[in-house]
Amino acid sequence: MKKNIEAKPVLFPTPVLVVATYDKEGNPNAMTAAWGGICCSSPPCVTISLRKATYTYSSLMETKAYTINVPGKRHVREADYFGIGSGRNEDKFAVTSLTPVKSEHVNAPYINEFPLNLECKVVHVIDLGLHTQFVGEIVNIKVDELMEDNEQQPLIEQIMPLIFAPSSRNYYTIGEEVGKAFSIGKCFL
Amino acid sequence: MKKNIEAKPVLFPTPVLVVATYDKEGNPNAMTAAWGGICCSSPPCVTISLRKATYTYSSLMETKAYTINVPGKRHVREADYFGIGSGRNEDKFAVTSLTPVKSEHVNAPYINEFPLNLECKVVHVIDLGLHTQFVGEIVNIKVDELMEDNEQQPLIEQIMPLIFAPSSRNYYTIGEEVGKAFSIGKCFL
Repeated sequence: MKKNIEAKPVLFPTPVLVVATYDKEGNPNAMTAAWGGICCSSPPCVTISLRKATYTYSSLMETKAYTINVPGKRHVREADYFGIGSGRNEDKFAVTSLTPVKSEHVNAPYINEFPLNLECKVVHVIDLGLHTQFVGEIVNIKVDELMEDNEQQPLIEQIMPLIFAPSSRNYYTIGEEVGKAFSIGKCFL
Repeated sequence: MKKNIEAKPVLFPTPVLVVATYDKEGNPNAMTAAWGGICCSSPPCVTISLRKATYTYSSLMETKAYTINVPGKRHVREADYFGIGSGRNEDKFAVTSLTPVKSEHVNAPYINEFPLNLECKVVHVIDLGLHTQFVGEIVNIKVDELMEDNEQQPLIEQIMPLIFAPSSRNYYTIGEEVGKAFSIGKCFL
């Protein structure tokens, strides 16, 4: 039996994305966001939505550059902390002992200890209400060497990314593989 | 050690979202997409990116309405099939024996057997290249009664949503809970 519930931002899964920027003084900062994801294959683009009140919002409006850093489950504490504190008041990299490294292709730092890093240039800014959506073109990707296969594909089972459940506000990791895409559904053809 | 790899649409996790629409004759259709997610909390909005070549793209440009349907792992075959076939050539609901039900608030069907359904009205259409992003305001949510808690929150552990890994192109389900958001990171405060 179906029930109507209040219209609110609920979807499963949502990602745990740590967005890193330089502020206008050139200091590195990072914050965690769950509202985002891939939005175009060519050019490859990824979105991230931020509240205007965040320090990262103002940095992004200045630099028009960011990285998306994907934490594995071993960094769940750091990833959560990046979503609690504000770079206005604290140096989150110093607090967590994580390392900001200047990106090669954009004016933003990436987080060295996180296994997957996307370097992005802002190509669209769309005011949606409480959140503003930034669309970034992915111009370079960095991955930990040990976390890719022979074809330079990052491996989800090595990375063990975090998943955020908006309603219960818990983090999860990925579980069992349940099928091969573009294949398991061929039983209906 | 970090390595640069080709800039491409890779991110973990990405969701498995089944987008349902009526075509201009009023026939229900559905397709699966992994490029999308929540993009604003207020008003609650969700994005979905589609190639212009898809049948759903042309339906959406007509009706400006869609539902996002979240399959659980028991429907992995159906979800994958919705991403393989095209509604131009086949009646995907007839093939899968799933049930399209007219939404209450928008001109789009939802998939009755899928546990979570978001009814959306298109508020922005953004051409990004190969993909076009549709931003939809969530105007109503339907959830299976057995899959929510006492506070009308849909439960991810009941729904067991699918996760898509873009590089290996496998589906996964969620795994173990690894922490409480806005809490586990307080160890750094």
